[in-house]
Amino acid sequence: MTPGLGHKLKEALLAIVGPEGFSEALIDMVSYSGDASEHSHRPQAAVWPRNAQEVAAILSLANQERLPVVPRGAGTGLAGAVVPVRGGLVMDLARMNRIREISLADRLVVVEPGVVFAQLQTALAPSGFSFPPDPASGKVATLGGNVATNAGGLQGAKYGVTRDYVLGLEVALADGSLMRTGSRCMKSVSGYDLTGLMVGSEGTLGVVTEITLKVVPKPPLSATASASFGDLRQAGDAIRQIMSSRFTPSVLEILDAECIKVLNRHAGQSLPEAAAMVLAEADGYTEQETDLQIRQITQAFAENDAQNIALAQSPEEAQQFWAARKAIGGTLFSLNNTMLAEDVTVPLSKVTDMLVGIGETARRNGVLIATLGHLGDGNLHPNLIIDGRDPDQLARAHRAAAELFALAVELGGTLTGEHGIGLAKASFMPLEHDETAMRMMRQIKRTFDPHDILNPGKMGL
Amino acid sequence: MTPGLGHKLKEALLAIVGPEGFSEALIDMVSYSGDASEHSHRPQAAVWPRNAQEVAAILSLANQERLPVVPRGAGTGLAGAVVPVRGGLVMDLARMNRIREISLADRLVVVEPGVVFAQLQTALAPSGFSFPPDPASGKVATLGGNVATNAGGLQGAKYGVTRDYVLGLEVALADGSLMRTGSRCMKSVSGYDLTGLMVGSEGTLGVVTEITLKVVPKPPLSATASASFGDLRQAGDAIRQIMSSRFTPSVLEILDAECIKVLNRHAGQSLPEAAAMVLAEADGYTEQETDLQIRQITQAFAENDAQNIALAQSPEEAQQFWAARKAIGGTLFSLNNTMLAEDVTVPLSKVTDMLVGIGETARRNGVLIATLGHLGDGNLHPNLIIDGRDPDQLARAHRAAAELFALAVELGGTLTGEHGIGLAKASFMPLEHDETAMRMMRQIKRTFDPHDILNPGKMGL
Repeated sequence: MTPGLGHKLKEALLAIVGPEGFSEALIDMVSYSGDASEHSHRPQAAVWPRNAQEVAAILSLANQERLPVVPRGAGTGLAGAVVPVRGGLVMDLARMNRIREISLADRLVVVEPGVVFAQLQTALAPSGFSFPPDPASGKVATLGGNVATNAGGLQGAKYGVTRDYVLGLEVALADGSLMRTGSRCMKSVSGYDLTGLMVGSEGTLGVVTEITLKVVPKPPLSATASASFGDLRQAGDAIRQIMSSRFTPSVLEILDAECIKVLNRHAGQSLPEAAAMVLAEADGYTEQETDLQIRQITQAFAENDAQNIALAQSPEEAQQFWAARKAIGGTLFSLNNTMLAEDVTVPLSKVTDMLVGIGETARRNGVLIATLGHLGDGNLHPNLIIDGRDPDQLARAHRAAAELFALAVELGGTLTGEHGIGLAKASFMPLEHDETAMRMMRQIKRTFDPHDILNPGKMGL
Repeated sequence: MTPGLGHKLKEALLAIVGPEGFSEALIDMVSYSGDASEHSHRPQAAVWPRNAQEVAAILSLANQERLPVVPRGAGTGLAGAVVPVRGGLVMDLARMNRIREISLADRLVVVEPGVVFAQLQTALAPSGFSFPPDPASGKVATLGGNVATNAGGLQGAKYGVTRDYVLGLEVALADGSLMRTGSRCMKSVSGYDLTGLMVGSEGTLGVVTEITLKVVPKPPLSATASASFGDLRQAGDAIRQIMSSRFTPSVLEILDAECIKVLNRHAGQSLPEAAAMVLAEADGYTEQETDLQIRQITQAFAENDAQNIALAQSPEEAQQFWAARKAIGGTLFSLNNTMLAEDVTVPLSKVTDMLVGIGETARRNGVLIATLGHLGDGNLHPNLIIDGRDPDQLARAHRAAAELFALAVELGGTLTGEHGIGLAKASFMPLEHDETAMRMMRQIKRTFDPHDILNPGKMGL
């Protein structure tokens, strides 16, 4: 049982956010104890600030009182990054949810951190512009969360990740100062990249109170192809051939044999059973452009012994191709009570080795691992699906995950391509980063947050 | 007269780099006193390390002895960033000039910092891949310098700047530690973005000893158009229309009336005299794609009263269009003995206001300003051309530059889009950055370099 806040501290918080902006109710503490990962810990109180000044005032107070503050959005994270492991305050930024400006003339939008990804995409849709990094949780996830985790998505290979689109931020620091970083310009080399440093820092360096995002026109046409492979190595080789060709697919996804089985059994699909299914999209402004690209892709499929190579003949058919991919996340989650959604990323030429290694790891540890992945950027999601109430299964799953991290790093890869370090991978940071890099990250953390109040206990720092 | 190093220090440096890697000769001290800006100060000695271990050993020694170290590449910078204002050592990284690896399968190259930009492009050319940020000085400038300044170029609007391509670094820190940042992966959210922090830090946080760069396939086809405008506002409006359309030109350049005059008089061109000439390029994989885009662009020209709208009918004709743009840099430099090559950047919708303001500033201060610019990212280069031996002209030029900085910031812009802060803009940093941002940048500097030995006196920190 987590103790409540002291009377004086509670009064001071109430003076900042008012009674409608504060809670110690058990139901709220339970709601704010976790995210979409297996991790959980209750905070002592929750606050819902309405503007940057309230955020800054809360941080200033918390800094004096050495009270942990965990900023959060919708809690869709998969790494436990918003779990308040040391109690303290959860700061839910949901009420700061206004799109302040859409300026197509400047190719930018200015949003508050609580704006939901889908809310922005809907607002932008009529213009043909978009903010491309589209996390699978985009219907729920907030842009503040996207910034805090440097969220990626399906279009990463061609269109990059969140950091590539953040032009500027307003950030409340631990001592209650407000800081502006970046600008409304498409580029700047004025001073250190404070914007980039904040992006992906998981709320450990400051609380983002305003985001200026670059938006880009989306080519209106696309072509979609799919194929299945009898062998993971053939799929990996096809992908290598595509990525070392002169084209960059706008989307290039893989579903492994386990995913295919699960979709056929539990999501009403009738996909050909195979070692892997690969889905590719190429975009452009003319049919000739998308056609030329997608034919290069299907040729790479054919040259690597793919079966069931299919080219969508209409946008409707393309939607059918993507239905399987869209269904997989939820279907996997529903298979059992616990899923470790992993997120290793490897250099493009090592995708095959990683896919094969995932299969071996699953067999060695007796854990069901269903893998999907964004192949254009080497980001694989091995999902370890277990009954988490069984300590033996849980132990085997954690051992398997640790082996996957070690393999990814051995292949020149990284622990996480888009989910973040949070709690889940905190202890693995030294596996990937050398002592000097770890030391400099810790020193940066101390520079911004000397009393360790901002989302403490995360990222292995 | 700068004093030499003490005997003991010299012996210690010689023990690290050998006699062929060390100099105190006057000719070398003069050569290393400046860059392509007006700033100049002699170092006490120069070193040419051959590998990361030598770089680290030099820094460790310098850190103990509190000796300033200024890392440099080819010295093509325009902001005085490599001028050793506090004496000490210049560390020329020219001998670390190997391309260590080209892996198209991984879409990356691994290079030493002294590799010249053009050397990499030549090595990549047969593959159809490239590292897109192409500074005008690319035939001479080194990739280490590109990273230190986060160099841009003509393709920025569509293909981004150097930071967008740096996947990982090896960096020697002030205390002689070697640190690896990033990885060989296309994306990672593992820890703070130390890579991005190093890029653009102008040698003030560490010395880059190895660079892993993403490379991308270049679409093989392009279409080129040009037009002239009788009024800067019409040019600005055309650009706004293009950039808020659904297309992103691969290049979009402007030359103002002064540039056009100078080219006609001194570079054998016969361009129509006008307020501005705009050059645009669209790229793609098919003719239909480039054609569709370039017609959108020429339509925007026509709807904003452009004259002399021309579409290149062949690659050779396109080359002729670009000849004027390519000749302008050198021609402007040759007009007088001093040129302040400025580099303000504004939000896309403010390009017109900035262009008009530059003209007013030139008239008000009686200074010749010839402006070119990369319009796709709002980056304008007002070049102030003067006889720098005349104190009055120099004073007026510096006043005009200060007015341009103030105007850019007032328009939501930045002091520098791609040249960097260095010495030239150091004192203007607080104009753009708030007190908290300045404080955090200074604290980051102190965290990485507590004794201020790394390129001290730069960036206003």
